[in-house]
Parts: sequence; structure tokens; C-alpha cells
Amino acid sequence: MQTLNATVGRIAAPDPAARAAAHARLECLTMPHWALGRLMDLAEDLAGMTGSPRPAVQRKTIVTMAGDHGVTAEGVSKYPPEVTPQMVHNFVHGGAGINALSRLVGARVVVVDMGVAGDLSALDKAGKIVSKRIAPGTKNMARGPAMSRDEAVRCVEAGIDIALQLGPGTDVFGTGDMGIGNTTPSSAIVAVLSGAPVVTVTGCGTGISEKERLHKIEVIQKALALNKPDPKDALDVLAKVGGFEIGGIAGLILGAAAQRKPVVLDGFISTAGALLANTLAPKSAAYMIAAHRSVEQGHRLALELLNKRPLLDLDLRLGEGTGAALAMNLLEAAVRVLTEVATFEEAAVSEAKQ
Amino acid sequence: MQTLNATVGRIAAPDPAARAAAHARLECLTMPHWALGRLMDLAEDLAGMTGSPRPAVQRKTIVTMAGDHGVTAEGVSKYPPEVTPQMVHNFVHGGAGINALSRLVGARVVVVDMGVAGDLSALDKAGKIVSKRIAPGTKNMARGPAMSRDEAVRCVEAGIDIALQLGPGTDVFGTGDMGIGNTTPSSAIVAVLSGAPVVTVTGCGTGISEKERLHKIEVIQKALALNKPDPKDALDVLAKVGGFEIGGIAGLILGAAAQRKPVVLDGFISTAGALLANTLAPKSAAYMIAAHRSVEQGHRLALELLNKRPLLDLDLRLGEGTGAALAMNLLEAAVRVLTEVATFEEAAVSEAKQ
Repeated sequence: MQTLNATVGRIAAPDPAARAAAHARLECLTMPHWALGRLMDLAEDLAGMTGSPRPAVQRKTIVTMAGDHGVTAEGVSKYPPEVTPQMVHNFVHGGAGINALSRLVGARVVVVDMGVAGDLSALDKAGKIVSKRIAPGTKNMARGPAMSRDEAVRCVEAGIDIALQLGPGTDVFGTGDMGIGNTTPSSAIVAVLSGAPVVTVTGCGTGISEKERLHKIEVIQKALALNKPDPKDALDVLAKVGGFEIGGIAGLILGAAAQRKPVVLDGFISTAGALLANTLAPKSAAYMIAAHRSVEQGHRLALELLNKRPLLDLDLRLGEGTGAALAMNLLEAAVRVLTEVATFEEAAVSEAKQ
Repeated sequence: MQTLNATVGRIAAPDPAARAAAHARLECLTMPHWALGRLMDLAEDLAGMTGSPRPAVQRKTIVTMAGDHGVTAEGVSKYPPEVTPQMVHNFVHGGAGINALSRLVGARVVVVDMGVAGDLSALDKAGKIVSKRIAPGTKNMARGPAMSRDEAVRCVEAGIDIALQLGPGTDVFGTGDMGIGNTTPSSAIVAVLSGAPVVTVTGCGTGISEKERLHKIEVIQKALALNKPDPKDALDVLAKVGGFEIGGIAGLILGAAAQRKPVVLDGFISTAGALLANTLAPKSAAYMIAAHRSVEQGHRLALELLNKRPLLDLDLRLGEGTGAALAMNLLEAAVRVLTEVATFEEAAVSEAKQ
């Protein structure tokens, strides 16, 4: 708990002076007032987060956290759990969606084994992934807690460690996930932290049928009735429903915020992790940027709870960090506008009539 | 008219075989079915447009068309007309929004003087801009036609010429505009071609007040009552309300479509040009990609008329081609997904249970 408590204690509010300096420059750019809309809001936010009127966003790291879920025994997913380690191999070989999109935006992808049910030790030894594995998958939340409270602390602290390790070489973090079954604990987290009925925050994940969705809802309802997670205690929620990679994402966000580094949230699973981070440290929310609005139906409410308007809305539902990678181009665009566009005075352009 | 007629005649439907090949590959990628949503739709569209299952989108050219508008004499804009040539100088010096965003996405910016009310001959001689000037600004549409029918043909053909000239070095075109007062003819075009009341398609442009907007609506209503543009005749609409740069954009789109090259539409003014192109050659619409939904209130309807869903929604209202530049990154992302992500077979990942 020491790392977690210390990190939460280090998270400070954004810098009002850097924000104000960015705002003042943006107001004088050679364009109608605030004509690049949300790019300009974003530039101002980035200045506040980084404490600089010229925010650095070039060195991008997407951390893709992988873990397995005991609840898959209940038949909540369309894919078998062996896909989780198979996809980790796909990430390492550069053939997944996140690889293609990260290459495009110049982001590094760091794959973390938070608790995959499969032997990834060869990849770990070869330095292809980072191993922070807690256990080979969580326990089935429909039969009891997904993990112990101690394990919950350990996975959040693993995420913090990764953020701190990568911090010196990273300007912006992106979150990503891989874990067959992980929309189930994510829906459970959003239901608990929002108080919304499970039915309203449970979607079709990788593509289950409506009948299967109703079954998934029943599984989550059963797990919540059995485990009674305390919505005021993020570690209790994480322990009761899982998963390891969601706890890792929460930790990564806290670690990024403690270093004043922006962290771009991918989709539904990442946002469930962000809700845990926000419960542990409400100040961390100021460092979060919502990349996109996922197709997954609980995502809209999850983003509203964080008071975040997503940058993109492209019917994505892949995870891995793909939405975060896409959005990173918009962060760079925002900084380019702030730092490269001339002011009226610099360019000798006439201003608006009063 | 010969260039225009020949170009319209050359525009063919997208290639169904290339589309089908792209679709088949996208369905086998190592991800849940169609999990990258609109990026995958876009990849399929790009394959159809270019006639290739590996569409080229790397060589990007944004054509920013500039022109002035006689209707500014009616007080429809917040900025004086001298800002148009000043901004052309800003483009040439690399200090405008379009320069910053084009540099980010690796796009070339070609600035065209379609009819600016100012002497840009030095920039033309220095090869910094392309001169296709029809006249030093259109006439005031509130007092008569903005230009002759012959001039309307000339500005559309100038846009076609530019597309054909740049075509061999361009994979994807983007449209852009600069012209103080040009939301006024754009609203007029959308009103005429949609049949919607002027009040519903007229917004605040560069930032006029509600009182000024009501005046702008009256000016447009007066111009339409006086000139009676024929909604079935795009050249008549263009001649009656202007402007030179909007006709140039329409021509650029036709020229791109005739070469099977995708053309990314920027905001409201570009979409007004696209509506003219669509009226001249309905088949050209298949080559148009809507970059974003502008704040300008007529834009939503204009996009609906073209049956286009925009990729971005970032409260932009600058023009210049800035939204098109931002969206070009998403075109590249779509192609990366299509060409770089492994299939289930290639990566030996288990498929979904049936």
C-alpha cells in the first residue's frame, strides 16, 4: 500500500499559470476566435497537465495490459480464453490492430502480462513483454471474489511501477487492454461505481447475441449480490470483480498523473480502470483524456461519470489501446496549433471589427 | 464546357471487386468482427474508390482555394475583406492553422488564387501560389448575379485543371477554402439545393452576433429572391451566389473523382462546393469523404444531402482545409488496418465459437 498511498499523495492539480499562458496565446492566433474548437481546449488542458505552455507530446507509450478472467467459465464471451495469450504473441509479432495504429502515430507499445492464463515466460525472458503477473487469471466472480485485497493492491501498484519506469522516456501514456471476458468485470465496475442497473451498462463485448447478453447480465448480477463490493472502496470493487489488467490500468493512470503526464484512455475496459483510479484519487481525472466513445453500451455512462467528452466516435470496440493510439494524433495536432500557428501580430493580419 | 463535360463523363462508380477483396480480408483480421468499426468501413470505401485492395493514401495534397465576395459590402462578416489576401500570405509563410496541421500529417498545401480582391501577383511569380483568378472578388449577390455563367464554368474548370495537374503526385486530395464572407454564398447554395429555409442553414461564420446573423439571413433571402437560382442547374446556382473558390472546390472534387482519387471534404464551404459537384455529377459523391461536422449550422444538413457521416466532430469552424488535414490521419489508419493487421490464419489465433 505504500507505493499506492505515496503516488496518490503526489498527484497535484494542473498548473493554472501554464494553462493561462496557453489560453492567452490561443486567443491571439490568426483565425476566428477559438475556431479550432476542441483542439484548442485540448491544447489548454495539455498545458495545464504538463505545466508547460509548450506541452511535450511526442514520445508516446501505449501500455497494453493483459489478463485472464475466471468468469469466462460462465460462458460470457464469444472467444475461448486461449485467445488472450495468442493475442499477446500477436502483439509481440506486430500483427495486431494496436501495432498497426501505433506505428502510424509513432507510439511505442509495451505489453504487460498482468495475469494471463498461459505460459508467457519465454516472451518475458526475451524482453518482449513485461511480466507483472499476479496469478494465471482471476477467480470466477460468480462464485466468490475475483482476487484478494492484497492482489488488488499489487496489481494497481504494478501499474504505478510501470508508469514510473517508463516515465522518463514518455511524454504521453495511452492505456490498452487484452483479456477475453474483460467486458464482464468492466460492466460490473461501472454498475457498482455509478449505481446504474447492470442491464444498462452491459453490452455485447466481442459480439455475443442478445440471449448471451442476458446471461452475462445475470452472471454479473449474481456476482454483485454474492460479493457485495463497496462502491466507496475501489480496491474492494477491484478485488470482488477483477481483473488484473483493469487494476493495472488504474495504477498506470495514477502513476502518469503523479508525474504530470497526460494519459489517453482507450475504450470501455480502460475507462473502468479510470473509474477505479478516479475513486482512489479524484485529482487523477484531470490527467485523463478520453480517446473515443466505444460501441460498448456502458461506455457512455462511464465517460459521463468522469465528466469526459471523447475525442473520437468511430464505432470502435477492439480495445488493445487502438482508440488511444488514434487519438494521440489529435494531441499532437492540438500542440501544433498552440505552438506553430502565428498570432495576428506575428503575421500582420487584421483583427475582427469590434 | 468541354473540360467540364469530359470530366463528368469520366467519373465511374467505385470498383466492386477491390471493395469485395478488402471486405473479405477485413472480416478475417485478428479482432472481433468489424471491431474497428468506421475505420474498416473507410478502408473498404478507399479500396473501391482507388480500385485497389491496398489503397494508396500516403501522398496527400490539400488544395486551399481563396476568393473574395462582393456580398461583404452588405456587412455579413466580422472581418474586413483585406484579411483574405493577408491570410494567403500567412499560408505562404507557413503560419496558418492549415500549415501546422498539414505538416503534422505530411500533406502538401497548394494555395490557389481563384479571385482574391488584392494583388497576389508577386506570390504567383515566385511560384508560391497557383493563380487561376477569375476576377478580384465576385459581385455583390444582393444586387445581381455574383458572376456570369461563363465565369462559373471557368472556375469549376480551373478546379478540374488543378486536380489533373496535381493528380500524378497525389494519392488523396483534401479541399480547403479562404474567403472573407464565404459562409454567406455557402448558406445560399445549401438553401437552394436542399430547399430548406435560409434561416435554418445560416450560421455565425467567423463569429457574428445573433443580430448580425439575422441581417445575413435577410441578405441571402434578398439575393435568392432577386437572382432566382435554379436548383437543378449547379452552374446557375454558382453564378448567382458565388463564389470563385467554391466553384474551384467543386471542380477539384470532379477532377479527383475522374482520376479515382479520394477527396476529403473540409467543412461547410467545402461541402457547399461538394453539393455543386454532386449536382453536376452524382457519381462524384462516391469519392467524397466528410472530414468533420462543423459548428456552422448548415453543415449538418449539407452532409445529410450528400449522405455522408463525418469522421470527426471537434467543434471546428476554421476552414482552410484544417479538418481535411486532421481526417487524413484516419484514412492512413484505415489503410494500415487493412494492410498491416494479421488474419486469424496468419497469426494462428483461435476464432470465435460459432
